[in-house]
Amino acid sequence: MIEPSTAMIETFPNPSRGRDYEIEIVSPEFTSVCPKTGQPDFGTVTIRYVADASCIELKSLKLYLHAYRQKGIFYEAVTNQILDDVVAACRPRRMEVATDWRPRGGMTSRITARYP
Amino acid sequence: MIEPSTAMIETFPNPSRGRDYEIEIVSPEFTSVCPKTGQPDFGTVTIRYVADASCIELKSLKLYLHAYRQKGIFYEAVTNQILDDVVAACRPRRMEVATDWRPRGGMTSRITARYP
Amino acid sequence: MIEPSTAMIETFPNPSRGRDYEIEIVSPEFTSVCPKTGQPDFGTVTIRYVADASCIELKSLKLYLHAYRQKGIFYEAVTNQILDDVVAACRPRRMEVATDWRPRGGMTSRITARYP
Amino acid sequence: MIEPSTAMIETFPNPSRGRDYEIEIVSPEFTSVCPKTGQPDFGTVTIRYVADASCIELKSLKLYLHAYRQKGIFYEAVTNQILDDVVAACRPRRMEVATDWRPRGGMTSRITARYP
Amino acid sequence: MIEPSTAMIETFPNPSRGRDYEIEIVSPEFTSVCPKTGQPDFGTVTIRYVADASCIELKSLKLYLHAYRQKGIFYEAVTNQILDDVVAACRPRRMEVATDWRPRGGMTSRITARYP
Amino acid sequence: MIEPSTAMIETFPNPSRGRDYEIEIVSPEFTSVCPKTGQPDFGTVTIRYVADASCIELKSLKLYLHAYRQKGIFYEAVTNQILDDVVAACRPRRMEVATDWRPRGGMTSRITARYP
Amino acid sequence: MIEPSTAMIETFPNPSRGRDYEIEIVSPEFTSVCPKTGQPDFGTVTIRYVADASCIELKSLKLYLHAYRQKGIFYEAVTNQILDDVVAACRPRRMEVATDWRPRGGMTSRITARYP
Amino acid sequence: MIEPSTAMIETFPNPSRGRDYEIEIVSPEFTSVCPKTGQPDFGTVTIRYVADASCIELKSLKLYLHAYRQKGIFYEAVTNQILDDVVAACRPRRMEVATDWRPRGGMTSRITARYP
Amino acid sequence: MIEPSTAMIETFPNPSRGRDYEIEIVSPEFTSVCPKTGQPDFGTVTIRYVADASCIELKSLKLYLHAYRQKGIFYEAVTNQILDDVVAACRPRRMEVATDWRPRGGMTSRITARYP
Amino acid sequence: MIEPSTAMIETFPNPSRGRDYEIEIVSPEFTSVCPKTGQPDFGTVTIRYVADASCIELKSLKLYLHAYRQKGIFYEAVTNQILDDVVAACRPRRMEVATDWRPRGGMTSRITARYP
Repeated sequence: MIEPSTAMIETFPNPSRGRDYEIEIVSPEFTSVCPKTGQPDFGTVTIRYVADASCIELKSLKLYLHAYRQKGIFYEAVTNQILDDVVAACRPRRMEVATDWRPRGGMTSRITARYP
Repeated sequence: MIEPSTAMIETFPNPSRGRDYEIEIVSPEFTSVCPKTGQPDFGTVTIRYVADASCIELKSLKLYLHAYRQKGIFYEAVTNQILDDVVAACRPRRMEVATDWRPRGGMTSRITARYP
Repeated sequence: MIEPSTAMIETFPNPSRGRDYEIEIVSPEFTSVCPKTGQPDFGTVTIRYVADASCIELKSLKLYLHAYRQKGIFYEAVTNQILDDVVAACRPRRMEVATDWRPRGGMTSRITARYP
Repeated sequence: MIEPSTAMIETFPNPSRGRDYEIEIVSPEFTSVCPKTGQPDFGTVTIRYVADASCIELKSLKLYLHAYRQKGIFYEAVTNQILDDVVAACRPRRMEVATDWRPRGGMTSRITARYP
Repeated sequence: MIEPSTAMIETFPNPSRGRDYEIEIVSPEFTSVCPKTGQPDFGTVTIRYVADASCIELKSLKLYLHAYRQKGIFYEAVTNQILDDVVAACRPRRMEVATDWRPRGGMTSRITARYP
Repeated sequence: MIEPSTAMIETFPNPSRGRDYEIEIVSPEFTSVCPKTGQPDFGTVTIRYVADASCIELKSLKLYLHAYRQKGIFYEAVTNQILDDVVAACRPRRMEVATDWRPRGGMTSRITARYP
Repeated sequence: MIEPSTAMIETFPNPSRGRDYEIEIVSPEFTSVCPKTGQPDFGTVTIRYVADASCIELKSLKLYLHAYRQKGIFYEAVTNQILDDVVAACRPRRMEVATDWRPRGGMTSRITARYP
Repeated sequence: MIEPSTAMIETFPNPSRGRDYEIEIVSPEFTSVCPKTGQPDFGTVTIRYVADASCIELKSLKLYLHAYRQKGIFYEAVTNQILDDVVAACRPRRMEVATDWRPRGGMTSRITARYP
Repeated sequence: MIEPSTAMIETFPNPSRGRDYEIEIVSPEFTSVCPKTGQPDFGTVTIRYVADASCIELKSLKLYLHAYRQKGIFYEAVTNQILDDVVAACRPRRMEVATDWRPRGGMTSRITARYP
Repeated sequence: MIEPSTAMIETFPNPSRGRDYEIEIVSPEFTSVCPKTGQPDFGTVTIRYVADASCIELKSLKLYLHAYRQKGIFYEAVTNQILDDVVAACRPRRMEVATDWRPRGGMTSRITARYP
């Protein structure tokens, strides 16, 4: 099992660096493990950012997100870690990461973190 | 029957206290009792907040909300009490509580209270 | 606390007994208690029937369904009990009771029973 | 106040009597009065029929349905009366009348009657 | 027939007067009469307000809105009159009344008035 | 102004005559004129058929449907005329024409005719 | 055929001139003619305004919009002409006209113009 | 890692064995691994059955479905294996298993198998 | 440019040949060229079948469908050719192919062909 | 195969140059080729702008967008190139181009660029 890390996220040069423009990527196929119960959690990850020199390469992002599949981690922590890792990988002008989680105990959750 | 109180709501340390980020929890399984008619009311409770030192633990929140099941209380009062109790429990930087109620007399209601 | 029973369900004479016609009543405000965990369950109850001599009186049906509020009972059992009780109360030509339940363990359930 | 009656419903000759074809009319603006509480009920009336010699004239149907505005009548009775009155007015090959009612006591209702 | 008036609207003391919070009430069961054609109009009334000393009592509001059932009044006038009457009754910090009307002449309408 | 007629509808040879297969064409841009009020009616025309030797050419069908733009004709008559004209033009194995009309007097209508 | 003009739009005195309130009228039954192809265009017209002394009378507005039925005019021109004509007729404090058009060449369009 | 097997699925006695009634369970949180690419697949599993002596216990079903999390298996095979395993565990009168899969190569898939 | 042909469609052995079960594949990313105008058409292709010895391999199906990208072909012809080619490739017990097309001339189309 | 270029986009004089008004064009029929895999990408292109002297002619825009059909280009690059080309062609006061892409690797993308 591979541990998710910034090193997994590849980038490519921003083809239009002179312009501030937004990129949004939505992955409705995220799953990690609840560290308390050991049961899987399922959610949607949304990443919105304005690139500086580098854009996120989609296939490597997919593999990075899949690396959480067996990882025990809370909603709040995983959201902030994804933001930290992706920011470290592509150094964007600004970024927002939101996670939406399927109901647990009858309740849905949504966490939204922003950089800077 | 347990009376709902701040003491029921557990918290855990914010894993990313250095950053202002939003947490939203939606529970569509809320029910209390109309103090006037004695009949049950049904609603959805939405809590949005920015944590400071502490995050709300979801299972304890679920039990806290279930404690209203036999309690006679008006829409306006229950919304403000949930806000007061949850604020007291986790001392957030800011919080909003909204309740959406199924039709009574053909009319739906929605109450939204904010802290601070 | 009142135990749900056939005796709670009132009826009134079918105003058009000479014709086979369908009546559907949907209550999205049903709640009972899981006998295993003691936690509340939430669902929607749908009753479809063709009356013979008697129609179901709506207010008494509402009170009958509310009587499950504190009762520990499984999905399959409650669906069949509602069918049995309402059939006993109004002696319809035919009836169907369906219950749709909010997710538990990430899974929704729907039970559908028919008379005769 | 005018009492609803068959005489209010005008018809015009079926322009294509040699063919069995379906006509559906949906009026989401129906209101009558609950005879028990005196409070207004609100619903949608759907009429589906195959004309024989005569088709229903829409404006007269609208006025016929408006005539229930101040009338105290139960869901089951009004559905069957509309079917009886419209059948008497246009003598269709077959007809179905369905009424869908806004929630009362948290429950919606739907009544469906057919001729012959 | 009762004429709609401020006196019909009852209030109760705001249980959380120290806090500015929003209350929204939606009634999709509003009907009045077109003064030009004499035909009924159907709409949805939405009231959003921040209470000061008093909150609107829902049952009396329902009866107040029902009092328009036989009243001939234009869309613009009824929206402003509801705002004036409800403001007079509960003296809110601020209030908005919106009415949405079913199509007439193929056109839907929406009127929105605010206090202060 | 061109009067709608069978002669306007062109066809092309069925490329797969050996097989019974369904073709559905939906035109949400139909408009004709009410012969009573002189006001325009707006609707959606749906044609479903199984071709025999010939398929309907779409552009000519569009022009045929546009030819109703200034024509005064009732819902029932236009539905049956479209069925008659298109059947005469392409001699299908079977065909169904349905028309759905925007609300008039608060009521929507749908007419469905079939051949043979 | 009548050419659309300001003179066709009637008004009535604003019943609540002392207050700034919004009126929105939506007509999903608009049709004009493409001046290039001669083929009909279909769209939805939305008018939002704050009245000063006069409100738009709905029936005359309907007739005004119907006057475009045989008129060859581009999307951008018709949107601005409706705004100009309606502003000239009712002299509002402010107004917005938006038109939404059904797909042509696989593309939908929306034009939004504002006064002042 | 646990291999999914019939032995994981627990049952409880059917509370209403004398009646044929339907039970539907929907789990939108299913994930397995594509044996060709090694990448995760995501889908929804729907089980509909009529119980004989035994009903499926939900928590054990959840754990059984989670056991596919690391298993490489094709859509067709997993659908048939779930049907075989659940039939073996609860011996129903009849059962249907359907799986709906998120897009791969731009295409969604749905497999439906039935017993007997 | 590759011409679409049966030879492009690969299959794999049906893992559950003893059972009649349905497979549905939906590709909303189909495009071909109108042979009359030379302009691209866009549609959704749905294939439903019961396999006999062989199942359709998804990646080869995707490439087969992409081979229509530059091909001039009418809606009716392409639907029947896909059915013929896929039947020839996997020899199913039964199959249905449906194509849904984006509006042309304001009209959408849907073609449905079945084997045998 | 024609390469997409500014020269393909025709314009016509803004009929209401004295007013700042918005034009939005949505094309859900865009397809290009992934330069990495050679496989087609499918998306929706939305262009919103305020014209100065010139408006975009729709048919030429359609042909311009179709010119990407065989072109290998990344999401970020195509979005910025469309913006650059259309700005060069019609010199708007301001413009926004957004592209929404069908899922690849389970992830959807949306790119939004603005001028100036």
